[in-house]
Amino acid sequence: MNPNSELGAALQALILRAEQALDRSLPPAEHSPAELHRAMRYAVLGGGKRLRPLLVYAAAHALGEDGPQLDAAACAVELIHAYSLVHDDLPAMDDDALRRGRPTCHIVFGEAMAILAGDALQALAFAILAEQPADHAGAITRMAMLRALGRACGAEGMAGGQALDLGAVGRPLTLAELEHMHACKTGALIRASVRLGALAANADPATLQALDRYAHAVGLAFQVRDDILDVEGESAVIGKTAGKDAAAAKPTFPSIIGIDASRARLVELTGIASAAIAALGERGTLLAELALYAAHRQY
Amino acid sequence: MNPNSELGAALQALILRAEQALDRSLPPAEHSPAELHRAMRYAVLGGGKRLRPLLVYAAAHALGEDGPQLDAAACAVELIHAYSLVHDDLPAMDDDALRRGRPTCHIVFGEAMAILAGDALQALAFAILAEQPADHAGAITRMAMLRALGRACGAEGMAGGQALDLGAVGRPLTLAELEHMHACKTGALIRASVRLGALAANADPATLQALDRYAHAVGLAFQVRDDILDVEGESAVIGKTAGKDAAAAKPTFPSIIGIDASRARLVELTGIASAAIAALGERGTLLAELALYAAHRQY
Repeated sequence: MNPNSELGAALQALILRAEQALDRSLPPAEHSPAELHRAMRYAVLGGGKRLRPLLVYAAAHALGEDGPQLDAAACAVELIHAYSLVHDDLPAMDDDALRRGRPTCHIVFGEAMAILAGDALQALAFAILAEQPADHAGAITRMAMLRALGRACGAEGMAGGQALDLGAVGRPLTLAELEHMHACKTGALIRASVRLGALAANADPATLQALDRYAHAVGLAFQVRDDILDVEGESAVIGKTAGKDAAAAKPTFPSIIGIDASRARLVELTGIASAAIAALGERGTLLAELALYAAHRQY
Repeated sequence: MNPNSELGAALQALILRAEQALDRSLPPAEHSPAELHRAMRYAVLGGGKRLRPLLVYAAAHALGEDGPQLDAAACAVELIHAYSLVHDDLPAMDDDALRRGRPTCHIVFGEAMAILAGDALQALAFAILAEQPADHAGAITRMAMLRALGRACGAEGMAGGQALDLGAVGRPLTLAELEHMHACKTGALIRASVRLGALAANADPATLQALDRYAHAVGLAFQVRDDILDVEGESAVIGKTAGKDAAAAKPTFPSIIGIDASRARLVELTGIASAAIAALGERGTLLAELALYAAHRQY
C-alpha cells in the first residue's frame, strides 16, 4: 500500500523532502530518553499522506518561493498533525488500535509514553519554527508563522474541534455544526499549513485571503472524502478500521445529508478551491492537484 | 490554606498580576467549546505557587525591566506548567486524584477532556508568546523566548524528564541520575522562566549565564524540598497525597541519600543560587527571596 501513489512526480518529490526534513528534526532513537524518542519517531515517520507539508510547499511555490526555510514550516505542521493522531487514538479518546495499517503509538509504547510523545511533538513543532536563525525582517515573518500555528492548534482550532467532536458522539448535528466542527478539528491546521507557506513567501494580504479560501475548501473536502471512504472503503486499503464512524455513532456527512449530497458537496468544494487560486494561473498547479487529491483520493 | 502566605508583599503583588494576566489569556468559560474552556480554566486558575511567573518577573526586575510584555512570558510558563500537571495526573501517568487540595482535572472533566485541555494549554502558551505585536528588535527577542520555551518543554526538557521518571519507578537510581531527571522534568521550565524574564530585559550573555546557574540551583532545591515534604508533610497542608512517592516506589532524594544529606544539599543549592546573583546586589532581592522560598517552603 502506498498512499502517495495517487500524486504526481513533483508532489512525490516534495513528500520525500518533507520526510527527510522530519527525520532530521526528530531526536535520534538511540539517545536518552530513548523510549520517548522512539515513540516520537514511530508516530511521525510511519507513513502518512503528508498533505500538510505538501500544502506548505505548494503555497510557497505558487508564490515563487522554494528556500530551505520552508522545511521548518513543513515539519512543524506535520509534527502537530502526528501528535494529534497519537492523542486522538488513545483509549480515553477514540480508542483506536490501528493507524496507517500499523498498531497505534499507545499499543506499541503504552499509554503514558504515547501521551508524552504527543506532548513532546507539539513542543518540537513550535521549537523548530522558532529555531532557525532569522534577520529582523525574517523574525517578523517567523513570528506571524508561530502565531498562525499557535492559534490553529489550540482551543479555537484543532483542540477545540476535537472537544466539539467528543461532545457530538451519539447526538444529532446539523450540517452547519458538522462543518464547523471539522473546520476546527482538521481545517484549522490545513489552513495554517497554507498560511505558513504563503507567509514564508511574503504573500500580500489579498493573496493570503485567497489562499485561505482555498485552504478552507480543501480542508472540508478532505473531511467529506474521509467520511465517504469510511462508508465505502475497505480497512486494508484505507489503513484504518472502516465503518468505525457508524459503529461509534459519530456524525458524518453521509449520515447527515446522505452519500449523494456528500458527493455533490465535494464537487462544490473543489470548485471553490479552484476559483480561489485561479488568479495564480500556472503557478497554482500543485495547489490545484492537491485540491483534487483531497476530494478524490482512494485512501 | 494559602500557599502564598510565605512570600513577601512584593511577590504577593506579582502573583496577583500573574493571575489577572492568566485570567485574561484563557478563553471565556461561557464560549464554545465551553467544556474545554472550563477544563482549561480549572487547571490554571485553581491556585498554585506561581513560582514560574514569579521567576519571570523577578529576573526582569533584577535587570530594571517591568513592562507589560512580561505578562505574556509569565502566562506562557505557567500555562505550560499547568498543562504538565494535568497530563501527569492522568490515570495512565501518576494517577493522582488530588491536586492543590481539589480533585484533579480528569476527575472533574473526564480523561478525554483533560488530555485535550492540556494540549490546548500548551498551544496557548506558544500562541500568547507569539501574539504580542513587536518591532523588528522585539521580534528577535521574542523569537529567542519562543526558542527557549520550546526547548524547555520537549524531549530534551520537561517531556523528556517525565519519560525518565516513568522509566525510573521501582528501579534504583544514582544521585546523578535523579538530579538529571529533575533537571529535565521540572528544572528545564524553571530555567526557561528565568531566561524569558532576562531576555525580556535584554540581558547580556554573561548575565544570562549567571541567572541560568541561579535557576538551575533553585529548580533542584525546589525538588529536593518537594521530596522532603513528601516524607514529612501532611496531605492537608501540602494539598496533595503525602507519602505517595514512597508508596509508588519513586526514587527521591531522601530515599537515595537520606533525609540529613537531603537537607545539606538544600543548603548547598541555596548557596549556589545566592552566589550566582551576588553581582546584582540589591536588585536581586526578589530572586534571593524566591531561592529561599524554594528551599524552605512548607507547602
